[in-house]
Amino acid sequence: MNNYGESNGDSNVHEKQVEGHDHCENGDGSDNRVILGIDGGTTSTVCVCIPLFSSSKSLPNPPPILGRAVSGCSNHNSVGVTVHVSYPTETAARDTLEEVMAEALSKSGSDWSAVHAVCLGVSGVNHPTDQERILNWLREIFPSHVKLYVQNDAVAALASGTMGKLHGCVLIAGTGCISYGFAEDGREARASGAGPVLGDWGSGYGIAAKALTAVIRAHDGRGPQTMLTNKILKALSLSSPDELIGWTYADPSWARIAALVPEVVSCAEACDQVATKILVNAVQDLALSVKAVVQRLHLCGEDGNGSFPVVMVGGVLEANRTWDIGKEVMKCIQEQFPGAHPIRQQVEPAVGAALLAWNFLMKESTENSHS
Amino acid sequence: MNNYGESNGDSNVHEKQVEGHDHCENGDGSDNRVILGIDGGTTSTVCVCIPLFSSSKSLPNPPPILGRAVSGCSNHNSVGVTVHVSYPTETAARDTLEEVMAEALSKSGSDWSAVHAVCLGVSGVNHPTDQERILNWLREIFPSHVKLYVQNDAVAALASGTMGKLHGCVLIAGTGCISYGFAEDGREARASGAGPVLGDWGSGYGIAAKALTAVIRAHDGRGPQTMLTNKILKALSLSSPDELIGWTYADPSWARIAALVPEVVSCAEACDQVATKILVNAVQDLALSVKAVVQRLHLCGEDGNGSFPVVMVGGVLEANRTWDIGKEVMKCIQEQFPGAHPIRQQVEPAVGAALLAWNFLMKESTENSHS
Repeated sequence: MNNYGESNGDSNVHEKQVEGHDHCENGDGSDNRVILGIDGGTTSTVCVCIPLFSSSKSLPNPPPILGRAVSGCSNHNSVGVTVHVSYPTETAARDTLEEVMAEALSKSGSDWSAVHAVCLGVSGVNHPTDQERILNWLREIFPSHVKLYVQNDAVAALASGTMGKLHGCVLIAGTGCISYGFAEDGREARASGAGPVLGDWGSGYGIAAKALTAVIRAHDGRGPQTMLTNKILKALSLSSPDELIGWTYADPSWARIAALVPEVVSCAEACDQVATKILVNAVQDLALSVKAVVQRLHLCGEDGNGSFPVVMVGGVLEANRTWDIGKEVMKCIQEQFPGAHPIRQQVEPAVGAALLAWNFLMKESTENSHS
Repeated sequence: MNNYGESNGDSNVHEKQVEGHDHCENGDGSDNRVILGIDGGTTSTVCVCIPLFSSSKSLPNPPPILGRAVSGCSNHNSVGVTVHVSYPTETAARDTLEEVMAEALSKSGSDWSAVHAVCLGVSGVNHPTDQERILNWLREIFPSHVKLYVQNDAVAALASGTMGKLHGCVLIAGTGCISYGFAEDGREARASGAGPVLGDWGSGYGIAAKALTAVIRAHDGRGPQTMLTNKILKALSLSSPDELIGWTYADPSWARIAALVPEVVSCAEACDQVATKILVNAVQDLALSVKAVVQRLHLCGEDGNGSFPVVMVGGVLEANRTWDIGKEVMKCIQEQFPGAHPIRQQVEPAVGAALLAWNFLMKESTENSHS
């Protein structure tokens, strides 16, 4: 968590910076300083600007959004979502980031000089070097006194459920899937989120790929017949399973494949055994990801019954269907850890990122006052 | 099998064509006419030129190769091997095909006018439209009396084991995998060969992807510890399983991942349970592909004990290791079909394609003489 900004002599650093840090106190415990929270997604980048509240007690829920801006993709690489869309170069991604922040500040009636902290939640942060690379972009934009934080997007998603507090576990299952958790003492752990090559079978992509495989296997005599065949061929306007091969190769983007999840759920709801088995396996895989994190962090306490939140995020978990994947996953987790309680995101991920920054600031301020 | 050339008025058709078809008979039963066999692989295209023997009894084994040429990739799409290399446009692929045939003819001391039949075996032929598209290229090159055949590369591989006869089954397991079979009456069937998205788990890619997944699962607490971790990290010069995520995304070509199969075999040979399970599952998947084809074609006859060849092709089956995947697959097939007997390729795939053309010609000639 030591992702602080560092001083640098780069001439690109925004010069509209305050020198004296003399901020006016507003009546609500905030001053004119702001926090930027950014959700660096694969199709868009969202930036929100919230006021810097100086006392932890005065943080309104939900926090006031001074400004919000949306831009294109700022993802520095393809990790976790899809390798087949065109990704921006690092320069283009950095430019996108800078633009979306400028717009959010402008909409807030604020400017670069007011920025006190920035938190960017972005997929593809799997290794300290990923984090360092993106921090370097931000360091080029901001002067050294600005606090900078870069986190995996799952951490911002957790914060968007816990309103900034890093405790408990988040499970994301959309096109991809990941589980990420924090213990009260700051230890963190993750499971899955490695992409389809590395077996994220509980993801939307994983579920749909297994369904497509089942159709091929039924067709060539390796597997049982299934409703999935007609359902999927109809959804894709294809006339034969043979054509699925060409279909997957025509555009192997993961999101395009993951979009077939509702067809799989429909077949399971109609009691198709093949579809049901695919969903049951996905439920077990997703629950296992959470259980692995809970176990490594001892989130369940000494007696195994300790209470902790599980933030449930993503289209696979939120589909609200009769065959409810999210509900089944939670049931499976609670069989082992009865203290696990599901919560939904309270705010959007960009706000989660801003709350995260605020939380880090409060923690540092407490640590400093104790030292 | 009605992939005959058709007449066309295209000015690109090679004009050095004989008008009268007056060919000199050689002493060995051949005349000056030739057959071109082409193996259109993903990294190279091989073309061989063999003499046209007019009688089936006089075909020498192995057949004399008049000329052989190698060129770049002529694969019209990415199906079956890897989506991540740069594929030529259709025009470039057609040009490559034409060049490699011209070179083989030139090396044979022959020319376009001597070509009597052409057979191209190419991966990515999964649907009649694929076949038709490639036939159209060849139709633009050759005059209408030249017999043209386009087949999935698995069919040419079968012919390279059976010396042109289309009977039995071929199992290819390299980077990808496919099973393809023919009954004596000409019926054909295939299984697998749909690519990694569609679950070719017995392929080299499938085996290695499962091994990489096992390393990730051991690392994040979802699976048992395995020797695969150290073995694979060492092979890739990585220091932590976290780095595998970046490694797979840096270049997700299937061949690069499939290259890890020897590491999996080594771990299985050292009795690692995770690696052993991956190989056992791959063996079952590969055997199932063959069994599905055998069953659909009734290759085993009425009593289930009928004899038929299984041509075993590809690095996964031919590794010649103590843990012998090919041997285990064959054992698994023979448990159900004792008449299955393994054979290896006798000639290279391009020669298999040429023999296939010769076989088609003989069949048509027999059919014509009976009609």
